[in-house]
Amino acid sequence: MALTLQSFAEGHWVPAGADAVDIPSAVDGRVVATASSTGLDFAAMARFARMVGGPALRAMTFHQRAELLKRLAVHLTERKEALYELSFDTGATRRDSWIDIDGGIGTLFAYASRGRKELPSERFILDGAFEPLSRQGSFVGAHILSPLHGVAVHVNAFNFPCWGLLEKLAPALLAGMPVISKPATSTAYVAHAMVAMIVESGILPPGALQFVAGSTGDLLDHLTGQDVVSFTGSAATSGKLRDHPAVSRNAVRFIAERDSLNAAILGSDAAPESPEFDLFVKEVAREMTAKAGQKCTAIRRVIVPRAQVQAVRDALAARLARQRIGNPRDEAVTMGPLSSQGQRRDVRAQVAELARDAEIVFGDPARVEVSGANAERGAFLSPLLLHCADPIRAERVHHVEAFGPVATLLPYDDLDQAVMLAQRGEGSLVASAFSYDPAVTEQLVMGLAPFHGRLYLLDRDSAKEGTGHGSPLPALVHGGPGRAGGGEEMGGMRGVHHYLQRTALQGSPAKLSALTRQWGAGAPTRTDGPHPFRRSFDELAIGDTVETPSRVITLGDIEHFAHFTGDTFYAHMDEEAAKANPFFPGRVAHGYLILSFAAGLFVDPAPGPLLANYGLERLRFLKPVSPGDSIRVRLTVKAKRLGRLPEYGEVRWDAEVFNQHDETVAQYDVLTMSARAP
Amino acid sequence: MALTLQSFAEGHWVPAGADAVDIPSAVDGRVVATASSTGLDFAAMARFARMVGGPALRAMTFHQRAELLKRLAVHLTERKEALYELSFDTGATRRDSWIDIDGGIGTLFAYASRGRKELPSERFILDGAFEPLSRQGSFVGAHILSPLHGVAVHVNAFNFPCWGLLEKLAPALLAGMPVISKPATSTAYVAHAMVAMIVESGILPPGALQFVAGSTGDLLDHLTGQDVVSFTGSAATSGKLRDHPAVSRNAVRFIAERDSLNAAILGSDAAPESPEFDLFVKEVAREMTAKAGQKCTAIRRVIVPRAQVQAVRDALAARLARQRIGNPRDEAVTMGPLSSQGQRRDVRAQVAELARDAEIVFGDPARVEVSGANAERGAFLSPLLLHCADPIRAERVHHVEAFGPVATLLPYDDLDQAVMLAQRGEGSLVASAFSYDPAVTEQLVMGLAPFHGRLYLLDRDSAKEGTGHGSPLPALVHGGPGRAGGGEEMGGMRGVHHYLQRTALQGSPAKLSALTRQWGAGAPTRTDGPHPFRRSFDELAIGDTVETPSRVITLGDIEHFAHFTGDTFYAHMDEEAAKANPFFPGRVAHGYLILSFAAGLFVDPAPGPLLANYGLERLRFLKPVSPGDSIRVRLTVKAKRLGRLPEYGEVRWDAEVFNQHDETVAQYDVLTMSARAP
Repeated sequence: MALTLQSFAEGHWVPAGADAVDIPSAVDGRVVATASSTGLDFAAMARFARMVGGPALRAMTFHQRAELLKRLAVHLTERKEALYELSFDTGATRRDSWIDIDGGIGTLFAYASRGRKELPSERFILDGAFEPLSRQGSFVGAHILSPLHGVAVHVNAFNFPCWGLLEKLAPALLAGMPVISKPATSTAYVAHAMVAMIVESGILPPGALQFVAGSTGDLLDHLTGQDVVSFTGSAATSGKLRDHPAVSRNAVRFIAERDSLNAAILGSDAAPESPEFDLFVKEVAREMTAKAGQKCTAIRRVIVPRAQVQAVRDALAARLARQRIGNPRDEAVTMGPLSSQGQRRDVRAQVAELARDAEIVFGDPARVEVSGANAERGAFLSPLLLHCADPIRAERVHHVEAFGPVATLLPYDDLDQAVMLAQRGEGSLVASAFSYDPAVTEQLVMGLAPFHGRLYLLDRDSAKEGTGHGSPLPALVHGGPGRAGGGEEMGGMRGVHHYLQRTALQGSPAKLSALTRQWGAGAPTRTDGPHPFRRSFDELAIGDTVETPSRVITLGDIEHFAHFTGDTFYAHMDEEAAKANPFFPGRVAHGYLILSFAAGLFVDPAPGPLLANYGLERLRFLKPVSPGDSIRVRLTVKAKRLGRLPEYGEVRWDAEVFNQHDETVAQYDVLTMSARAP
Repeated sequence: MALTLQSFAEGHWVPAGADAVDIPSAVDGRVVATASSTGLDFAAMARFARMVGGPALRAMTFHQRAELLKRLAVHLTERKEALYELSFDTGATRRDSWIDIDGGIGTLFAYASRGRKELPSERFILDGAFEPLSRQGSFVGAHILSPLHGVAVHVNAFNFPCWGLLEKLAPALLAGMPVISKPATSTAYVAHAMVAMIVESGILPPGALQFVAGSTGDLLDHLTGQDVVSFTGSAATSGKLRDHPAVSRNAVRFIAERDSLNAAILGSDAAPESPEFDLFVKEVAREMTAKAGQKCTAIRRVIVPRAQVQAVRDALAARLARQRIGNPRDEAVTMGPLSSQGQRRDVRAQVAELARDAEIVFGDPARVEVSGANAERGAFLSPLLLHCADPIRAERVHHVEAFGPVATLLPYDDLDQAVMLAQRGEGSLVASAFSYDPAVTEQLVMGLAPFHGRLYLLDRDSAKEGTGHGSPLPALVHGGPGRAGGGEEMGGMRGVHHYLQRTALQGSPAKLSALTRQWGAGAPTRTDGPHPFRRSFDELAIGDTVETPSRVITLGDIEHFAHFTGDTFYAHMDEEAAKANPFFPGRVAHGYLILSFAAGLFVDPAPGPLLANYGLERLRFLKPVSPGDSIRVRLTVKAKRLGRLPEYGEVRWDAEVFNQHDETVAQYDVLTMSARAP
């Protein structure tokens, strides 16, 4: 019986409108579900996100929101089998669904983990260093990133109903923005089931996630300059959203991932016997058939040395011939149908276009042998390999994206031409290059980089662990310039920044230190009371300082240190040689001696809340210390951050070492772990 | 005699078309210049930039391009008086022109200096750390930023013909992108003179800068996904450019700085006797009159506690009454005319709009007393202060930008309302807050930040050195969300990134190390030949390594080090107390002892090309070292960078300290200065 998809709006499930459209199974054409968003009050949904979801998310810190993502990921993992079961009807094999379902949940886990590690336990991010803006230092600048006050509208493609939703949701929620998510209708029943799991979990605060089964109606009319639209799909739809009057007028942030004629290039060095040749053939065949080629990252253009065209063609044809096409529920099947009859019609039309520039050398668009299903009732299509003999004069092979198991072989004569052919795609999500020659790789990479969001560079050394040409990863940017839409999703914390506003702050060091929770030069310090090592993480305040007495560094100290450590570098040991060095006035103290004596000066030795010095950053030795000079240290709490475990917090101290003339000889950050208040 | 402005296209000055329009003086209406771009071949200009300018710029490193900017800045500084002279006819006083001319040249200097300091001596930037992508470590990721292959089209506003051109030019050229610059026609003669100086200098390679005097014709039709448009001006024009079919279809990067109803907020704590009250009044009056209020950053909305409205109004009126308005060539004049009669007509119409929501409480739009000029022949206008009694119900005061010496007083009842009123601007370039109460400041800042690109926070501590509400600075972002266009210019290196494509690379550590010129874990090392400290900067290769013998750390070493340095922290001295610490198994070696012994192990003491260890970064102590453990070090050349002086280069070494079980106990970067090859 067909499922009636509902939308989740303003905290409630809302039944479909009376005009619900049928969503047929890709495998056998029966109606799986029906959907309509008619009757939804989109203005009220946007308002609900802004007035309820946004404030609730912004009241949390990045760490608390990361924790939500982790709980969601665990919750979905426990229930994922139900999604796998539904997913078969989209045409996906279990392996295809793994990319979608486990890939999506993995993205949640990745953002949970990175958010915890890389973001502060605050509601804003301090972006970069303080900027000196004045001679006397009484006026300085800093940048913060804070969540926009609007709603993130996510419009997803049909091919990855789970991953597409989650890879957009995770960065937005982590940033602190509520989301209205709209899946492509043809596979919306999988996204619908996942959203139902999320809603039922009660993990997200009300208004953090709303869901539209059906069209976005007049939602875009209600967008403001605080909102974000993130779109994955065709260039035509993207253009409509991007040029929508409200989006244009209000400069709504618009992130697009559109068409892409991704290339794979076989290096001029990779002859048929080489490991790279085999890796190349394997990757092209896999990209053509995984998800029946319905991936925005799939290889469409197979760029090979002219001399290797026949060998590649034969090897690919052999691999493609071994595919078993049919009912994706059958575990022996390696490629399922396209997602719908409409999709198959489109692909056939696109192949007919390509065939004006190229010859079909494998497969028949009209015929395919199918196992366990009916080839016509399901949206089955044979893998199709084309060959374009003159890719320089051809246009269509560079511009027509057949969104199915289709790729075209393009011969090149030299590497410049290979680069030029790849560039003819006018901007792609990804290209791959298979070569073991560093010079070949470098020439390809430097020519391809400005036209691509990602370059996949496989060779014999990385073959075993390569993650695949077509796999976007949470750690790397996903998106490409030009035809690919110019968007940039994921990429670790880069994707989170789309939902944050960067704001420059200008004011006195005291003011900026208080606002950013980071001490900077010129901000007040506090030196009264007990040694700061005696204060717990919670008792320590930004600006708490110890000013040490001074200590003379003698020539004896330097010699002693040299012989004790073995560091007898001439600048410490040989007056004449040291003098000849352009940076030293004569023998000088070791940098490590200065650091060690500095610690001796500022340490408070008895057991207390300060547990360990686990690191040091940004150290610069700014002035040499000569025998007879004395040093003293100012150590100030610069920043605090909650740690992984609830018992401890991380404290960053600003250490500045001065000589007897009050000149700075060294400056660095000391990182310690301190116990929380008992 | 009127100057006939020419365009600079394809390396030549091209005469104006026959339909040249007259550009009148703002001061007396006489024709200063004529301009037309009719007849220019815009397609050829774009091609020239891409085929000639781009390759020439991309052949240089960031440091070499920074050097070009510095030479340009010096060249213009020597000739700036001629620009000041021309600038009077735009209506600018000498003080106004200082912002434009010296401000613009200062931006060139700033980008020259920061580019040199913050960017690598390479043709691409490594963006962030290597990303582990596999369990065994044979497949990793990294991001690079490389210049786009297209042309940057810069469309500037009339108010700052020099600064506007240069603040866009500097980041683009530093990034390696050629520019076609088009000034607003009404003040194009100043930009024209400056471009003539740049061309005549011969500093830039051919094709790096082209200049359009007149309209942009069909230039936008020829843009591709490798191009960038950066626009400053009205929302109406911005919309036309943004929604241009070629821009939309090709996802041309579009940076806009548009309308902005910037607010200044007087804190609820700042009573009429306070320093902040005086600073506020002074700043508002200055922002209203500097450049006759024709600044996109000028204060339009003056948000004050209801109780202070009368006091602010009186104080402002007194200050405005002291302005001397007239011929900007007269040094006693503090405010010149608007830039044109058309501009005055627009402002009067906008004031009439505002007057439907607010009452004019200072000045008369129809009348102004003028010194040394004719009030009607020149585009003179009185400063105009309005008062809107009910700013919550009013719409126009938040949406109508009168681009002249015009501001409106808006009373507020509490801080939430002040924030809400500022937000009603729907996104602004800048807001300022005048308060000495940290709680007031924090509430304002956190509410304003998501709606603003910059917040100017002046108080008694920073009063002397504050750089001004209206002054964008190279170090800080300039731009704002929503109505302000969503762009982000300058901001140090952030503004350079608009002209670079970020590309994720995936491959083996060896491959990524070779491509990025940075050694990472798993990449090959080379340990043969002489100690790497014996190799000059030029002889050192990424991956050159010294593997040291090991050294036992005894309890005696630890005790000796503790007493020598004074660092008798209990974790080193007291077995029982150390055991009670959650991170230590018992007494452990000092981190600084490990560092010092490590240096003793890897140092090669005799004089040689390695001159000094000037810093250390990213140090983490990963495992405690107990008495009896031994340590050894692997020190590898991680990256190289040319230094400020030609004699030296900076070498970054990856240091990893292992114990006797080959576990990593510490990891850090050592920074050294090495002599170039003799």
